[in-house]
Amino acid sequence: FSTWKSHTGAYVGKLLVVPMDGSHWVGMKAISQEMGRRGHRVTVVMPEITILIGPGEHYETLIYPLPFDKAFVDFIMSKNEDVLGKYDGEDGGKDFVYSIALMWITLKLLLIPQRFDAVLTDPMVPTGSLIARKLGIPTVNLLRGIPCFLDMQSTGCPSPPSYVPRFFTGLTDKMDFKQRVINTLVSALEPLLCRLIYWRFDQIAKEFLEEDVGVAEVLSDSAIWLHRIDFTMEFPRPFMPNMVPVGGINCNVRNPLPEDLEPWVSGKQGFVVFTLGTSMKKMPDEITQVFLEAFRQIPQKVIWRYSEVAPDNTPENVKMMSWVPQNDLLAHPGARAFITHAGSHGLFEGLCHAVPMVMVPIGGDQPDNAARMASRGVGVVLDISSITAEDLLQGLNEVINDTRYKENMKRLSALHRDRPIDPLDLSVYWTEFVMRHKGAKHLKAAVHDLNWFQYFCLDVIALLATIVLVFIVLTAKCLKFCCRKLSRKRKQD
Amino acid sequence: FSTWKSHTGAYVGKLLVVPMDGSHWVGMKAISQEMGRRGHRVTVVMPEITILIGPGEHYETLIYPLPFDKAFVDFIMSKNEDVLGKYDGEDGGKDFVYSIALMWITLKLLLIPQRFDAVLTDPMVPTGSLIARKLGIPTVNLLRGIPCFLDMQSTGCPSPPSYVPRFFTGLTDKMDFKQRVINTLVSALEPLLCRLIYWRFDQIAKEFLEEDVGVAEVLSDSAIWLHRIDFTMEFPRPFMPNMVPVGGINCNVRNPLPEDLEPWVSGKQGFVVFTLGTSMKKMPDEITQVFLEAFRQIPQKVIWRYSEVAPDNTPENVKMMSWVPQNDLLAHPGARAFITHAGSHGLFEGLCHAVPMVMVPIGGDQPDNAARMASRGVGVVLDISSITAEDLLQGLNEVINDTRYKENMKRLSALHRDRPIDPLDLSVYWTEFVMRHKGAKHLKAAVHDLNWFQYFCLDVIALLATIVLVFIVLTAKCLKFCCRKLSRKRKQD
Repeated sequence: FSTWKSHTGAYVGKLLVVPMDGSHWVGMKAISQEMGRRGHRVTVVMPEITILIGPGEHYETLIYPLPFDKAFVDFIMSKNEDVLGKYDGEDGGKDFVYSIALMWITLKLLLIPQRFDAVLTDPMVPTGSLIARKLGIPTVNLLRGIPCFLDMQSTGCPSPPSYVPRFFTGLTDKMDFKQRVINTLVSALEPLLCRLIYWRFDQIAKEFLEEDVGVAEVLSDSAIWLHRIDFTMEFPRPFMPNMVPVGGINCNVRNPLPEDLEPWVSGKQGFVVFTLGTSMKKMPDEITQVFLEAFRQIPQKVIWRYSEVAPDNTPENVKMMSWVPQNDLLAHPGARAFITHAGSHGLFEGLCHAVPMVMVPIGGDQPDNAARMASRGVGVVLDISSITAEDLLQGLNEVINDTRYKENMKRLSALHRDRPIDPLDLSVYWTEFVMRHKGAKHLKAAVHDLNWFQYFCLDVIALLATIVLVFIVLTAKCLKFCCRKLSRKRKQD
Repeated sequence: FSTWKSHTGAYVGKLLVVPMDGSHWVGMKAISQEMGRRGHRVTVVMPEITILIGPGEHYETLIYPLPFDKAFVDFIMSKNEDVLGKYDGEDGGKDFVYSIALMWITLKLLLIPQRFDAVLTDPMVPTGSLIARKLGIPTVNLLRGIPCFLDMQSTGCPSPPSYVPRFFTGLTDKMDFKQRVINTLVSALEPLLCRLIYWRFDQIAKEFLEEDVGVAEVLSDSAIWLHRIDFTMEFPRPFMPNMVPVGGINCNVRNPLPEDLEPWVSGKQGFVVFTLGTSMKKMPDEITQVFLEAFRQIPQKVIWRYSEVAPDNTPENVKMMSWVPQNDLLAHPGARAFITHAGSHGLFEGLCHAVPMVMVPIGGDQPDNAARMASRGVGVVLDISSITAEDLLQGLNEVINDTRYKENMKRLSALHRDRPIDPLDLSVYWTEFVMRHKGAKHLKAAVHDLNWFQYFCLDVIALLATIVLVFIVLTAKCLKFCCRKLSRKRKQD
């Protein structure tokens, strides 16, 4: 078997990484780097045109060609940017095209004599999972969660709708009756939603694997699920033994701040960090002006990730940069507030460094994330489509000057950081575990041998109900018979 | 607040330990010792007469008087030993007497000016939990599991009867229809079983706490549940965020073997370890003879924990001792087989050191434990009430000479020992966590705000069913009305 020992004597092997692009790559990269640093041979499969995925120090890349060019990708992305609230570029249509290309690359992988010990992938786009099944390699998933709860279905994890809020509902774990009705309806529609989201992949799976199998079943093969969640942010819910919460994976991945940022962070009044994620490239001018107007009225400096040319009326306390070292800025003691689109990575970085937040969710899981943080009293949520300078100013003043936000945040941050093992180390540990033991079968619940009828014991209930019914009917007949006999006897008397 | 820093600068505080006696004390002692070693002030509450609980190096004891003497305890224990299969001495009636005494000691604790940061206890006997609630201190539970699944009820952890086998059924996670009927019936009877087991404690709770509260509600207060299980032995099942599996806590608590055992363990053929737990003091003579007869026919040496005088006809290869260093013996490379009553502690030690097992469960959770290990192909189960020398000889030969048992055991042991953090360290970590943060509220699911009707969304389902019904009725009425109109019109035509 093609594994070997490193010079330190630790187990080393070969890991294939099939990532998703955009922010999904952030955690995946951290694990890939660390696995490589520990002596494993890490191969990252990536398309020739990417948003964030790129080469790194401790892994090799396997680049596959695309059936289109950069101009086409830019066109799709620019189209996405037209409609505010629809910035789903990172999870959108092009991933599907990538996946077809990945099918193609699998053939290449099959020709390579080296055998991989495990595949690390993001199951949201199940390309990696399909390749793993084709090659007969155990899978480690890294994900935030699949909107239609396909992850919960594939792990067999119970998710009672009475206190486990569904994606896109913005609900918390404490729901009134009306909210529970909504949540239950959404949960009832989940299987349908999964079908809609994954029907093309279901087809691809059947063709590619040459067996009658859908994505749900392929995913239920997975050995370990690394969930980028943490219960300081996510509401407590049941978990299965092969699900490992690793939220906040890049909290400790730190670098010193660039020197030119020094004057911006060393002011007495502190500063505000403002970023809107990798998927939002261009902000509509009128919204830019709303933000600038509010910033003009606060004493803090503002560091804003803004990829266009800075408007002429940009106030002096605002510095616009096409890229900001977000985690390092938030780690600076001068950080007073964090204006964020509430993507999970950003929230974890804010949580890690205890910076109160003004959240302007745009799409995807962001409204849910924002609702979770707001329910903890560590930030406020604003609607970006109707935002005014007054709202923003009030929100900023609140989280900066009302000490309760900072105090709640410090408490929550202390809980978040107080874990028996660093989430990055934990992710690496379980990836290595799967490589060492060729899977983790002993952690997989026996739910997959059951159909839904058996799972809910409906057959058992039907039997017991029948028995009770037969018993009642027989008793009634008996009584009737006795009564008749008795009354006949009386007549005879 | 009465906490202080140790010389190493780490957080230290005060821990109150309210243990259960017998084998339950083993893991509790390991945690108490380690907590004390790390500089915490650990106070173990114990009665003046005990089976295993005693003073240790790193903790202080608070001894309370009992309303009876040692003769009485011996009498109870000797009575228990009369009937094979009823060796419930460690969980039996006397614990109840202890608990009343503990109520009494609480008053003493209330008079002590020191404030404890947490209570570490075994919730099976909820004395510690009641004291914690009375004193307003967060609780850490260490337990194997409560037979009526009260732990699952109190944590709000789903336990689908379709693949989560119940206590005392001896079932596995793969059940046929008949077995699922049994398991479902047992699970339906659990609430009643809990009532029966805990009705006296429910009364005590009401009186002692002076509020209308039962044991289930008191236990749902608990911050962290350390479950002495591991998924190499336990079947995979849902877990809640505040439940931590820490099975195999004393795997690494090791000492060198006493010198007089050296000739017994150094033989070429290896040796068999034979123990039947702390609760079995005297074995009936006829069963002793069955074992001796079998041992006479094997080439291995046997080290037998036997507290009575060795019978005259004890063969030369058998050494009887009133106490054996079980974990250290199993860790010896010469250990070929482990004859055990399948108590969880013994099984974890055998699992830790990869020794195949012949299991003779006596009572309690032992038949279930044995079924779990047997389903992994690492040992055989024999019925002690009808055991013959031939059965035993065959069982021993099988696990010693059929290499599959050893191979399965080595594989399972490797999985068991491959964990990101040692279970003892993990237990200490979460105990310290609760002390540091005054609980772990963020890990508690919002199930306790819901009654069972709301939990299963029965109110929502009722509403939706009503809406559907009203819709159907209205549609039917409409159609009827239209039909009538139509037919009337035709008649008029």
